[in-house]
Amino acid sequence: MNSMWQEKENRLNRSFQFTDFKEAFAFMTKVALVAEKLDHHPHWINEYNKVDIFLSTHSAGNVVTDKDRELARLIDTLYKP
Amino acid sequence: MNSMWQEKENRLNRSFQFTDFKEAFAFMTKVALVAEKLDHHPHWINEYNKVDIFLSTHSAGNVVTDKDRELARLIDTLYKP
Repeated sequence: MNSMWQEKENRLNRSFQFTDFKEAFAFMTKVALVAEKLDHHPHWINEYNKVDIFLSTHSAGNVVTDKDRELARLIDTLYKP
Repeated sequence: MNSMWQEKENRLNRSFQFTDFKEAFAFMTKVALVAEKLDHHPHWINEYNKVDIFLSTHSAGNVVTDKDRELARLIDTLYKP
């Protein structure tokens, strides 16, 4: 598990930063495709060049599960700041 | 101005709902292209089929300006729930 993800309040959280909105949204598009494939979707916030991602598993009672760790790992592979 | 946008705490806010993540993210992609073209970007939150959008103008001191009203109007034209 990448140490840049922090587990707090039963969610994995990591913040990502980019040069501008275009780069941030390009990243979000890649994450969206991976999330859809896994059928496991993030709670995420975007403001200009920042993307803040929160992961937890609704079906498990909103706690962090291996599905979240797997999605976090895949998201990290997509991050090219 | 569409009355479904609410002005509170110096931001325009509207929540959008879709059948699933795929539809929600397709909408976000359309909004992203319009925002980039206007060079005016939303603060937004997505969780599965919901998109919550907040608009304010940073360069004007984080208040609602005509740029926000214009982006809100364009976003409404993209919403096909």
